[in-house]
Amino acid sequence: MEFSSKLLENAVNEISQLPGIGKRTALRLALHLLRQPKEHTHNLSHALLNMVNDLKFCTSCHNISDNDLCDICTNPLRKDDVICVVEDVRDVMAIENTASHKGLYHVLGGKISPMDGIGPHDLNITSLVQKVQTGQVKELIFALSPTMEGDTTNFYIYKQIKDFEVQTSTIAKGISVGDELEYADEITLGRSILNRIPFESSLKL
Amino acid sequence: MEFSSKLLENAVNEISQLPGIGKRTALRLALHLLRQPKEHTHNLSHALLNMVNDLKFCTSCHNISDNDLCDICTNPLRKDDVICVVEDVRDVMAIENTASHKGLYHVLGGKISPMDGIGPHDLNITSLVQKVQTGQVKELIFALSPTMEGDTTNFYIYKQIKDFEVQTSTIAKGISVGDELEYADEITLGRSILNRIPFESSLKL
Repeated sequence: MEFSSKLLENAVNEISQLPGIGKRTALRLALHLLRQPKEHTHNLSHALLNMVNDLKFCTSCHNISDNDLCDICTNPLRKDDVICVVEDVRDVMAIENTASHKGLYHVLGGKISPMDGIGPHDLNITSLVQKVQTGQVKELIFALSPTMEGDTTNFYIYKQIKDFEVQTSTIAKGISVGDELEYADEITLGRSILNRIPFESSLKL
Repeated sequence: MEFSSKLLENAVNEISQLPGIGKRTALRLALHLLRQPKEHTHNLSHALLNMVNDLKFCTSCHNISDNDLCDICTNPLRKDDVICVVEDVRDVMAIENTASHKGLYHVLGGKISPMDGIGPHDLNITSLVQKVQTGQVKELIFALSPTMEGDTTNFYIYKQIKDFEVQTSTIAKGISVGDELEYADEITLGRSILNRIPFESSLKL
């Protein structure tokens, strides 16, 4: 791509560093910004700068927060002895949307993934084990994505805490609500049969 | 979407103003930036600010440029009596890539599109007509997309300049090179038959 302007080229190069955005899309976005009033780009740039400069991570659960402790950790109505272990802030938002978890969270910041060079020490696992060691945690809910990396991470954490007195559970894997059975993959379908639950208890949900 | 941080929410809102980027993608991009070294976001923000603050438009052809006149307009090797009329800078880049046009350009900045509220006076048409009026332009090549808006714009400009001594041409419409005939739409196929060219002249290309 030959650019008629170095400034445009720089902007396109920087935008195309973002995941899933190629050079063509970056050019389209840059030209869109040029057509808008300058304030749009000023607002965008300052919002990004403020975010990376001033954003904090909750010192307890490692969720993204504007303060040292996040709103969930400081909420006295939440059960502080049930901790849901998740990968990142998107999972916290997704679970919060369901209103099904009344306890706290622990954000690992990723999953163990040797292929991507992410080991246990790149994640917030030590602080989770320390929380369990204090004896104040009754239940740990593993809510990582049911992938190879998620399962590996679950098992790694489980090995670290299995000698302490804490109950561990993992989210149910099965057929998505509303899905046709014939299109479900066989591992999911098989698990949903093996992990079947009493019909009466399904009526209560 | 409930955010645990006002700073993150602001950034996501600003990113999702970009065309084709929804809230979920914006969140993914914001979290990506948070995982990168801060310099990435600094570079991105400054590239965007520099672009909108310092970018110029060539005073002759209205192409994006770092100087008052763009590199194409100041190039003595280009024929200054053949002007290719295009919609925006992306079209200039696309045509330059083909190396098939040795003249100059005139960037309209859009197409006449009443549905989007874009009239002739929102485009760089007056300066094009003035160029033609000087009598120094031998040929005007209309290279707008062959859509309703493109054809309307071509015709509007044509009406303004038809009394001056200037040759006008438009890019050939036909079957794309490498395309299967059976999948071509009927208007394109019909035009390609009506606008057929001598076989000998096609051999020279």
